[in-house]
Amino acid sequence: MRPIPSDSDTMDLKRVIRNIPDFPKPGILFYDISTLLADAPAWKETVRRLANRVRAYQPDLLVGIESRGFLSAAPLAVELGLGFAMIRKRGKLPGTTIGHDYALEYGEDRVEIQADAVKHGQRVVLLDDLLATGGTAAAGITLLRSVGAEVVSAAFIIELAFLRGRERLDVAVDSIITYDE
Amino acid sequence: MRPIPSDSDTMDLKRVIRNIPDFPKPGILFYDISTLLADAPAWKETVRRLANRVRAYQPDLLVGIESRGFLSAAPLAVELGLGFAMIRKRGKLPGTTIGHDYALEYGEDRVEIQADAVKHGQRVVLLDDLLATGGTAAAGITLLRSVGAEVVSAAFIIELAFLRGRERLDVAVDSIITYDE
Repeated sequence: MRPIPSDSDTMDLKRVIRNIPDFPKPGILFYDISTLLADAPAWKETVRRLANRVRAYQPDLLVGIESRGFLSAAPLAVELGLGFAMIRKRGKLPGTTIGHDYALEYGEDRVEIQADAVKHGQRVVLLDDLLATGGTAAAGITLLRSVGAEVVSAAFIIELAFLRGRERLDVAVDSIITYDE
Repeated sequence: MRPIPSDSDTMDLKRVIRNIPDFPKPGILFYDISTLLADAPAWKETVRRLANRVRAYQPDLLVGIESRGFLSAAPLAVELGLGFAMIRKRGKLPGTTIGHDYALEYGEDRVEIQADAVKHGQRVVLLDDLLATGGTAAAGITLLRSVGAEVVSAAFIIELAFLRGRERLDVAVDSIITYDE
């Protein structure tokens, strides 16, 4: 049994993150949030800390990136009394969509959003579980601006600071668990 | 502006579901929950109603099916003070996984879960956004039992009752928005 600190502000969320070597390919150390999601007090505290960060930007709308960005967007919307929208991969969203193609290490990918998901000038916070090199988040921000959003921040559960992803994002960046090496 | 009923129990959630014809293919009418997610009071009410249904089964753990099952699993975990686990498509989960292959209308698909996600005998509620023919949910239940779960119910935001999906599921089924034709 893992002891839960009585004062939630001191809860060490890193203790419930599991490291899995060589996933999704050899040489990559994967930070697995499954163990965090499985731990009820840790998940509640994660949502509480994210909510406190995100609230400060006074957003009109939250946007989660498929699929682990949904994990934080959905409860934060309840917590902050906001609606939220989904950014998904190619062909997953019904109706009229707007897309943005972006380069990956090998090849290309595409993010899409419904054309009416954002009203012009809405203050939007982008959510994903992990900030690594920042490629997907940067693509999400570009996409959101193309549909008229004012992207006020991007918020992550985990940030791999040594990959310097935040330098690629020209918005305020928040994360609640940081790895420096 | 859409009026919000003062008594949340009378809120008509169907009014915030959008129907999109011919998605993902011609002849299919797609029930789009994007408009529900975007509506803050409706989303909060959705989570409240699901929580009231799910709580009754006294689950030990929630499980959401990728990716729209994450939308309800993540906030319900906070609401009910439970941890949750993800069922994902092939190759998405790190570490040791258990899989289950199942037949689709055309071809096959596979759902996977981490081998240590469920403790033997845990009472589990399975969550997804929509119950149609029940194929994915049935596969999820089979997978959960194979790792030792006692699946006590499956809960959905939307049920297309005319497709009789619940007849394929040998657990209690709850949904908060039902279409009879």
